[in-house]
Amino acid sequence: MIFHYSERSKDLQEKLQSFMEETVYPNESVYVQQLREGTDRWSIPAVIEEMKAKAKEAGLWNLFLPDSEWGGGLTNLDYAPLCEIMGRSSIAPEVFNCAAPDTGNMEVLERYGTDEQKEQWLKPLLEGKIRSCFSMTEPEVASSDATNMEATITPDGDEYIVNGRKWWSSGAGDPRCKVAIVMGKSNPDAPKHAQHSMILVPLDAPGVRVERMLPVFGYDDAPHGHAEITYDRVRVPKSHIIWGEGKGFAIAQGRLGPGRIHHCMRLIGAAERALELMKNRVRKRVAFGKPLADQGVIREWIADSRIEIEQARLLTLKAASMMDTAGNKVAKKEIAMIKVVAPNMALSVIDRAIQAYGGGGVSEDFPLAFMWAHARTLRLADGPDEVHRRAIAKLELSDPVRETSTG
Amino acid sequence: MIFHYSERSKDLQEKLQSFMEETVYPNESVYVQQLREGTDRWSIPAVIEEMKAKAKEAGLWNLFLPDSEWGGGLTNLDYAPLCEIMGRSSIAPEVFNCAAPDTGNMEVLERYGTDEQKEQWLKPLLEGKIRSCFSMTEPEVASSDATNMEATITPDGDEYIVNGRKWWSSGAGDPRCKVAIVMGKSNPDAPKHAQHSMILVPLDAPGVRVERMLPVFGYDDAPHGHAEITYDRVRVPKSHIIWGEGKGFAIAQGRLGPGRIHHCMRLIGAAERALELMKNRVRKRVAFGKPLADQGVIREWIADSRIEIEQARLLTLKAASMMDTAGNKVAKKEIAMIKVVAPNMALSVIDRAIQAYGGGGVSEDFPLAFMWAHARTLRLADGPDEVHRRAIAKLELSDPVRETSTG
Amino acid sequence: MIFHYSERSKDLQEKLQSFMEETVYPNESVYVQQLREGTDRWSIPAVIEEMKAKAKEAGLWNLFLPDSEWGGGLTNLDYAPLCEIMGRSSIAPEVFNCAAPDTGNMEVLERYGTDEQKEQWLKPLLEGKIRSCFSMTEPEVASSDATNMEATITPDGDEYIVNGRKWWSSGAGDPRCKVAIVMGKSNPDAPKHAQHSMILVPLDAPGVRVERMLPVFGYDDAPHGHAEITYDRVRVPKSHIIWGEGKGFAIAQGRLGPGRIHHCMRLIGAAERALELMKNRVRKRVAFGKPLADQGVIREWIADSRIEIEQARLLTLKAASMMDTAGNKVAKKEIAMIKVVAPNMALSVIDRAIQAYGGGGVSEDFPLAFMWAHARTLRLADGPDEVHRRAIAKLELSDPVRETSTG
Amino acid sequence: MIFHYSERSKDLQEKLQSFMEETVYPNESVYVQQLREGTDRWSIPAVIEEMKAKAKEAGLWNLFLPDSEWGGGLTNLDYAPLCEIMGRSSIAPEVFNCAAPDTGNMEVLERYGTDEQKEQWLKPLLEGKIRSCFSMTEPEVASSDATNMEATITPDGDEYIVNGRKWWSSGAGDPRCKVAIVMGKSNPDAPKHAQHSMILVPLDAPGVRVERMLPVFGYDDAPHGHAEITYDRVRVPKSHIIWGEGKGFAIAQGRLGPGRIHHCMRLIGAAERALELMKNRVRKRVAFGKPLADQGVIREWIADSRIEIEQARLLTLKAASMMDTAGNKVAKKEIAMIKVVAPNMALSVIDRAIQAYGGGGVSEDFPLAFMWAHARTLRLADGPDEVHRRAIAKLELSDPVRETSTG
Repeated sequence: MIFHYSERSKDLQEKLQSFMEETVYPNESVYVQQLREGTDRWSIPAVIEEMKAKAKEAGLWNLFLPDSEWGGGLTNLDYAPLCEIMGRSSIAPEVFNCAAPDTGNMEVLERYGTDEQKEQWLKPLLEGKIRSCFSMTEPEVASSDATNMEATITPDGDEYIVNGRKWWSSGAGDPRCKVAIVMGKSNPDAPKHAQHSMILVPLDAPGVRVERMLPVFGYDDAPHGHAEITYDRVRVPKSHIIWGEGKGFAIAQGRLGPGRIHHCMRLIGAAERALELMKNRVRKRVAFGKPLADQGVIREWIADSRIEIEQARLLTLKAASMMDTAGNKVAKKEIAMIKVVAPNMALSVIDRAIQAYGGGGVSEDFPLAFMWAHARTLRLADGPDEVHRRAIAKLELSDPVRETSTG
Repeated sequence: MIFHYSERSKDLQEKLQSFMEETVYPNESVYVQQLREGTDRWSIPAVIEEMKAKAKEAGLWNLFLPDSEWGGGLTNLDYAPLCEIMGRSSIAPEVFNCAAPDTGNMEVLERYGTDEQKEQWLKPLLEGKIRSCFSMTEPEVASSDATNMEATITPDGDEYIVNGRKWWSSGAGDPRCKVAIVMGKSNPDAPKHAQHSMILVPLDAPGVRVERMLPVFGYDDAPHGHAEITYDRVRVPKSHIIWGEGKGFAIAQGRLGPGRIHHCMRLIGAAERALELMKNRVRKRVAFGKPLADQGVIREWIADSRIEIEQARLLTLKAASMMDTAGNKVAKKEIAMIKVVAPNMALSVIDRAIQAYGGGGVSEDFPLAFMWAHARTLRLADGPDEVHRRAIAKLELSDPVRETSTG
Repeated sequence: MIFHYSERSKDLQEKLQSFMEETVYPNESVYVQQLREGTDRWSIPAVIEEMKAKAKEAGLWNLFLPDSEWGGGLTNLDYAPLCEIMGRSSIAPEVFNCAAPDTGNMEVLERYGTDEQKEQWLKPLLEGKIRSCFSMTEPEVASSDATNMEATITPDGDEYIVNGRKWWSSGAGDPRCKVAIVMGKSNPDAPKHAQHSMILVPLDAPGVRVERMLPVFGYDDAPHGHAEITYDRVRVPKSHIIWGEGKGFAIAQGRLGPGRIHHCMRLIGAAERALELMKNRVRKRVAFGKPLADQGVIREWIADSRIEIEQARLLTLKAASMMDTAGNKVAKKEIAMIKVVAPNMALSVIDRAIQAYGGGGVSEDFPLAFMWAHARTLRLADGPDEVHRRAIAKLELSDPVRETSTG
Repeated sequence: MIFHYSERSKDLQEKLQSFMEETVYPNESVYVQQLREGTDRWSIPAVIEEMKAKAKEAGLWNLFLPDSEWGGGLTNLDYAPLCEIMGRSSIAPEVFNCAAPDTGNMEVLERYGTDEQKEQWLKPLLEGKIRSCFSMTEPEVASSDATNMEATITPDGDEYIVNGRKWWSSGAGDPRCKVAIVMGKSNPDAPKHAQHSMILVPLDAPGVRVERMLPVFGYDDAPHGHAEITYDRVRVPKSHIIWGEGKGFAIAQGRLGPGRIHHCMRLIGAAERALELMKNRVRKRVAFGKPLADQGVIREWIADSRIEIEQARLLTLKAASMMDTAGNKVAKKEIAMIKVVAPNMALSVIDRAIQAYGGGGVSEDFPLAFMWAHARTLRLADGPDEVHRRAIAKLELSDPVRETSTG
């Protein structure tokens, strides 16, 4: 491999892979079973906490966090193959305390939080004792343009009053989810990108109301879920603001870079697993007297899937490496590129696998349909493809015209 | 329009459209509400029977059935625009007693059934009093090659014993579903395509066991559902066989032609509605200071969607017209073509609409995600794309080599 | 077939097909040979005039022209299959005096020309004695927006002075080409779409200078060619204006509708021939021990090609039929749609055939590479895809919002 | 950048870029002019030898050759960015003596040639005094399966007799081209991949007859050209065999790896230039009142082009790096992948640029149409996409089934 991983990363890759094989994959069905047998869809299967304890003990914990005091202290490049491995199973990221949106929230607190905020929220998050959600997008406005946001964070004496309706607050269905980072307009008269703030809102604060859990292509994604939440005159102390008034976009910029690339890394893992499943299937399944693998277009699917995965992986690694060496700002074109590439790649690889599995592919018998639905949301979450493409083109067109070329 | 519809069809189109606008669309949310409030997911919302009564009264009933004694007496071409209109709403086909798999089953009974079978099953089906399912595909074998089928129908005295495991028996979750048409091997020593039979199995016969309802991308499709059913030494009288032993494939051929094209017609309606929804959205939703309709790639999406829908519709109409004038057998290439085209077209149109709706698109707030999941199954149901493409190519390659061409 | 052709059209289809087989296909290589052996690339191979004489005698002449006094008197729908057949060979359209740009020019003269203009130019064109070109697009401006046009047609006493630089004046390389229809700005102060006129300019008028012949992917398209022409203070009598000052866009609208659809019909013929060639090839060519037809993805290519051709054909026929029954104006969305569909369809079908032919496919041994290059120009000529897509979307978005839909 | 280039490579990149800007780009039009004014299409424009002299002097010579005694001594990874830069101009590779097929031929001689062969052919090739061609594919058989080859190399006393018809012997039109490496069957009774040999045939040997120059789309690619050559009982001394009898496939394997990746590197340069041209154009060209860059789908094209180029580049670099570190054999999947990716990527990027240029795009006014035609041949040359995809799938399917996955 041409990207050089540190010895530490290589060692962790190996450990993680073993852990997946010994502990995570065999428990996927246990998890589903326990979820099904729970009192309702919103209780946590016991197996998840058992696996978390094991992972922590094995040192496979908080690997996402670059800062070495709290977390894994790995570079983005070193973390990439680990995050990819976790992405192979939808229950894995939580096992290693590396699941969205907690990872993004922890990074925000680690970077911009006060000591008090760290003590109150970051610590239990890092320990895997509580979970958190992120309330940014709103149902009434196009969130592709974040300046559309209508929620408000209004100072009132020692407090802020938070008002607004947010949706896609993923993870809020989890009974362990205790806090939301809410973004809203605090300074309506400031320049466009200094009008918004982020604030910590405990989910048990009066006025916080989970209206409903949003399904994704029929999946409730229990026990985490995607909540639509009304913040109705919710009062929180002024100390709950993160970094300061008007810093919302600045934090969002910082938060979204790593968040986006983590999604991409996991999508590569998911696509890799889908390809593996497809290969297994077509070698075994027989139609018209020979294995599917020997028929028609199946080998094209395998080849194209490998090609697409490999290219997406390389672009992700490049973006990760640039974030490490040149910073998230310089890497913004690469981050935008991979944010377009990874979900579309995963969707096409998974879709081929679904097709190879026939009816089983769209059902719950294989993880494919769920993986597809999840990947589909990532063409929208953290900015739709269109917005990222536009950002790439803008950067391209800001290059000086080269004189050596005709035209 | 260049395809000429009869006056009767034109008149029905108008009536149907009004009925949809006055009765069906406004009741879509009522249906969902009643389903949600039912004792479980598997009770029938009252509104559906109310609408059925109205539709019957309005003469919008059984329009799918070509034979005029029982049904609409319309040609496939005349039925096409009606079926398309019904396809705009997932609850509509049942309202007009034109829903799969009942339509296919009724056609089978009408064409191949004995008088006794017609009296017992066809009559209540035509009256909308009961529903039915179709047990063909099996989880253990590749159903793209139907000769793989392992279920058996074994004569034993005055009875047949039915054994096997079938899945995707759609509609079996419906409490009104009373009978299955089951396909299985009855004559293992006959030539390859004369080994199988179809037989009527009452769902309350001893040995019939619904193992589970299969989800489609997270949707349970309640209250109809897709059942996996075990037929465990189920005994039925010999009179339950349809047409005769060994006629399974012959019936399947006849059944699948119209069934496939009906799916395609409905998919065009679904795509048309998705495009309409997308157009509504992009005119109203504002980002970066102007409606989405005035930005980037949105107009390409609308144009491409219109182009794809229109081409799929024309091909469907051509296939329908050929079935009417030259017969289903001659039309088999066209049927295979449209079976490939329509689901893929619908998926791409609906996917663009989802993208235009952002987070709402993947949720339950709009019918798009559900429509997408349903359309996705139709790249598999009634034969995967690959099998149809192969059939088309085979027919193409059986043309004589033309001497006028070099090469 | 669901589109009903008149008996006359059916009879002509049969005659035309025989003529192609007996006369045109066998002479394709003769034509190439004679062109190669000519004194230069710009002399007309004798075989073309021989074939023209035969076609005229056989009544296969001027079939494109709807008006029955001068031409075939066929509807667009009736002409469509004839034009498609001609499109199978690049030398065929001229043989039947149905080649662009003469057809469009003749239609303009027939509809808008004075008796004098008809006598002088239309008559010899209809007789196939002279040829003509059309000078519209200009190298210096984006011609996708025709109002960019900079050429001028300035009244001066009894004359107009024509000034400007035009390119893609196809056919101007032909020694028989005697006249150009030139479009330019005559009334700069009029409303935007009434500023331009069309005027007849004899190619031997002083000041007309063919600067060069433009290659298309290396092809000179001799002996017709695509000329870049300078009109340098060219004086023509006032009687040479067509219809009247300021009528340029009105004429262009009328001219382009049929012209566009004729291109599409021919492209379908070209694609059909490419598919035929591909089928011939893959049945005969052996690799890895079996014919290409039995390998990998080849059958998918054939099936997809058939599907794409058939859909494009149906859309063309629908557009033709609408032009006949509702008029070119009402049919403008359908014309725009087919103008996008046909070239892209042809390019993909031909490209697959090229791939199946290997090195031969890109060479002159088969007509494929030339067909591809020609089809590629038609994603640009008469408006680039983008402009047509935009027109379609605009028409779609001008529909009233339907109240029956949520969103 | 995450791939680490040596200081030497970085230094050469800079020098090469300056040389391109100062010497190559400005001489592109001079080259065309001199070619046009030559006595025929097959004389070498003087400017090319002038540039070669300069390049040699500047140390920008034979950079492709890994071995440091003769050539640049660069790794594949270090050479990649240099080769990409050369790929930006179709006349550049020859300027630096890095043009196909000489590079492949020189590598063959360097690796497998005798001292005598090196003295006679390799030396003048390395000095840029002569050129060479490669006679492998044949018109009569599918060359995608090289074992189809029908040419023979038959021992006869001290000589071999070479018989066969080869085509796509690129470069044979060049008056400086003195020798062909010919592949043919020498040992018909040996195992399948040991039946063929490669042999050096001087082009002036009796019996060597250039039948014609094959056009690519309409391009003759003069003064190099693609020759169809008959080898009619050509006698060469036994010492002309390369490596030994039966080594043909072994050499081909070695030859094709680097040759393929060099093509890919150059294609990336070509695509990069096409994107640059497109960006220049859309910033300047105005339609409907604003630059093309601000309209419709143009920014999507730019973003997608950037994404596709970047992914292809990374995959090329990975393949290059694997060749350097693990060897060409281990890298065969990556080489196959990039061989599929690079031409298709280049075609799509260049095609978008053509579309943005309108009529100019398909003409000779910009290098785009020529670049496209050349890139199109590379979906066929050195193995068609289909064969490479099949090879990738075969490698994928030879992986052991992973037990951790269901399915």
